Amino acid sequence: MNRSPAIETLPYDKSLLAAHAQTIADNARELAALGWTPATSSNFSMRLDDRHAAVTVSGRDKGRLGADDIMVVDFDNRPVATEARPSAETALHTQIYRRFPTVGAVLHTHSRVQSVASRLFAGAGKVRFEGWELQKAISGYSTHESVLDLPVFPNTQDMAELVARIDAWLDAGKPLHGYLIDGHGIYAWGIDMAEARRHLEAFEFLLNCELDLRRLHA
Amino acid sequence: MNRSPAIETLPYDKSLLAAHAQTIADNARELAALGWTPATSSNFSMRLDDRHAAVTVSGRDKGRLGADDIMVVDFDNRPVATEARPSAETALHTQIYRRFPTVGAVLHTHSRVQSVASRLFAGAGKVRFEGWELQKAISGYSTHESVLDLPVFPNTQDMAELVARIDAWLDAGKPLHGYLIDGHGIYAWGIDMAEARRHLEAFEFLLNCELDLRRLHA
Amino acid sequence: MNRSPAIETLPYDKSLLAAHAQTIADNARELAALGWTPATSSNFSMRLDDRHAAVTVSGRDKGRLGADDIMVVDFDNRPVATEARPSAETALHTQIYRRFPTVGAVLHTHSRVQSVASRLFAGAGKVRFEGWELQKAISGYSTHESVLDLPVFPNTQDMAELVARIDAWLDAGKPLHGYLIDGHGIYAWGIDMAEARRHLEAFEFLLNCELDLRRLHA
Amino acid sequence: MNRSPAIETLPYDKSLLAAHAQTIADNARELAALGWTPATSSNFSMRLDDRHAAVTVSGRDKGRLGADDIMVVDFDNRPVATEARPSAETALHTQIYRRFPTVGAVLHTHSRVQSVASRLFAGAGKVRFEGWELQKAISGYSTHESVLDLPVFPNTQDMAELVARIDAWLDAGKPLHGYLIDGHGIYAWGIDMAEARRHLEAFEFLLNCELDLRRLHA
Repeated sequence: MNRSPAIETLPYDKSLLAAHAQTIADNARELAALGWTPATSSNFSMRLDDRHAAVTVSGRDKGRLGADDIMVVDFDNRPVATEARPSAETALHTQIYRRFPTVGAVLHTHSRVQSVASRLFAGAGKVRFEGWELQKAISGYSTHESVLDLPVFPNTQDMAELVARIDAWLDAGKPLHGYLIDGHGIYAWGIDMAEARRHLEAFEFLLNCELDLRRLHA
Repeated sequence: MNRSPAIETLPYDKSLLAAHAQTIADNARELAALGWTPATSSNFSMRLDDRHAAVTVSGRDKGRLGADDIMVVDFDNRPVATEARPSAETALHTQIYRRFPTVGAVLHTHSRVQSVASRLFAGAGKVRFEGWELQKAISGYSTHESVLDLPVFPNTQDMAELVARIDAWLDAGKPLHGYLIDGHGIYAWGIDMAEARRHLEAFEFLLNCELDLRRLHA
Repeated sequence: MNRSPAIETLPYDKSLLAAHAQTIADNARELAALGWTPATSSNFSMRLDDRHAAVTVSGRDKGRLGADDIMVVDFDNRPVATEARPSAETALHTQIYRRFPTVGAVLHTHSRVQSVASRLFAGAGKVRFEGWELQKAISGYSTHESVLDLPVFPNTQDMAELVARIDAWLDAGKPLHGYLIDGHGIYAWGIDMAEARRHLEAFEFLLNCELDLRRLHA
Repeated sequence: MNRSPAIETLPYDKSLLAAHAQTIADNARELAALGWTPATSSNFSMRLDDRHAAVTVSGRDKGRLGADDIMVVDFDNRPVATEARPSAETALHTQIYRRFPTVGAVLHTHSRVQSVASRLFAGAGKVRFEGWELQKAISGYSTHESVLDLPVFPNTQDMAELVARIDAWLDAGKPLHGYLIDGHGIYAWGIDMAEARRHLEAFEFLLNCELDLRRLHA
């Protein structure tokens, strides 16, 4: 039996990976230009199928990503067909894909307001948004008269601990559209990259507005 | 009798629509780059004639508008010769065209300072500007010694209610050069796109200055 | 005697005007991109000789100046060989050229911090800078240990009154490197456009730092 | 014995200088675009070997550097094979290269937050960072649970005095990853330009976050 060594059998769709890598690089460059990925921080991913995601390699400058800076992991956070090292925070991406089958893209950034708000609201455990028209940018919210909570989880170097906290939140049946990590940054997601970007921009805007109001009421 | 199916009889000037669509897309891209249209919010329009306006289709990214993202509505807010869905806020655009026959362009944006100022001044019902040279950028104002009021209307999902409030303000004979909606954003307009942009920029600048003064006096 | 009607006798150097117009347009575009010329405000000039200056025409968008947007005035503020209308504030430019024979460029902008600081320090009549390394960017200052005063003059629509106040300041022998007008903006100048830009940037930076310190000490 | 006058014997690698000059110009342009080098301030350098560094010539616009704006100095701060004048602050660059043999690039900038924070923390003599994920962007820091101190040295026109203060800090065995000078700006460095940029961006981000927290707690 002849088997050509040139034919690779990859457990994911190679052309979909190429397309996702381009989409991730383009969006990362725009987010870097906004200053939301300082000092090579932040990571981004897109779902490939029900077991795999494309995710940024650890430690690269997010304003200058190329095809080699995107790798594949499975939903147990193992690199697939690559020597590259995924970010320690990959587990937070795959958790979202496992728990929300319709989610297609996860974005994690470190803007200044995301970091500062996470510190300021860490004690309360969440930021509550009320009365802002922009709440309607979050899928499922059709009026500014609703209440939108963005939880703040404690920071830790132990990803399993963080995953467990987020699982506990979801298991308690609380709604989750994104979350902050104390002193760190934000996670936001959507059915595709466009919705994930819209959600991320809406949270950034709402956090800026809340902090502005605080400064003005002081 | 032969009637060519290729000849469309549109109730508006098709080439004027094409020109306006380009002008709207160009200006929207610039306003998006300033961060005034977060998360696909905001909408823009230009007058076509005494019964029709070109207006942005609901929910599109304002930094990347193409010809298909601009549609025509009549002044009763009905889509004309299109399957596209206009923004729910279209009624606020057509109200301005009906009440001010010389207005040629209406801009609605959601910058951070517009949203924050609307919350801060909602109780007072208006923002009062005095002593700023930039007040002269609003047509009809020739000195910084005048007083310029920008009303703040309560937010509601019921457009008819909002239209009625604005009509009541105008029927009372009060001057109206633009307005804020609480927790939401601003409406500004002018005889053409250039004047509408100048008015919008002037209000943005003046709101920023007022809020800065508050932060410094605190 | 034959006199060719095609030969214009201009009282200034036409090719120098063309060069200055390009320099003004290029610098205005960069300052507009920084947001320092909101809503068609601001004006810019360069010296042509000991009686004439090139100055921006009133009311144009400073981000999009062309050759037609720059005109010539003499030092009595009269338009020369043009139908264009100079800015009402032209008198403030020509005053500087008359009083400082080495000055080659004058810049007047309206940034947010320039406007806000002018209001905040109007009562004191000046902003005093001490202990900032950037003071050394102002020609003649070689150490941060010096004191640099930026006067704030009251705003008025009467240019002759403003000119007289500035003359009085200079006649009293006080140093003048630039000035604010209350609720309005800044004037800065230099021997050429590069030095005028450096001075303008230094004042903008120093004003921002002073206001930041105030907000933090509150 | 024939000696060709065309053969220059330079004590450094000429092609390495050309490469470093390009790297410095590219990075300076990006930092200038961020507004961190106002009014021709700031200076940048890269190591050539164990006795020489390429450094920016004094007083140039950092957004428009060319090959002629980069010169060579030895580690005693003497210009090498050039008539150009190095910045008075060159001694602060060569000090770092002498004390840290692995350092390949030194960046000195003057952003607004660097200047303001230096004034605010001058009394304390340092800024202490705790609990920020971005502390991990500084080489050697692997957790946000560590403490990172950025010292603030008094400003002086006497470089020898400043060099002595920094030497004293290092001789006392205290860790040094960068430092502020009161009323002035920051110095940051790394094994190569990429690491120096990452460190500079991380300090800028952390200083902004600390000042934001202060404004919000006031």
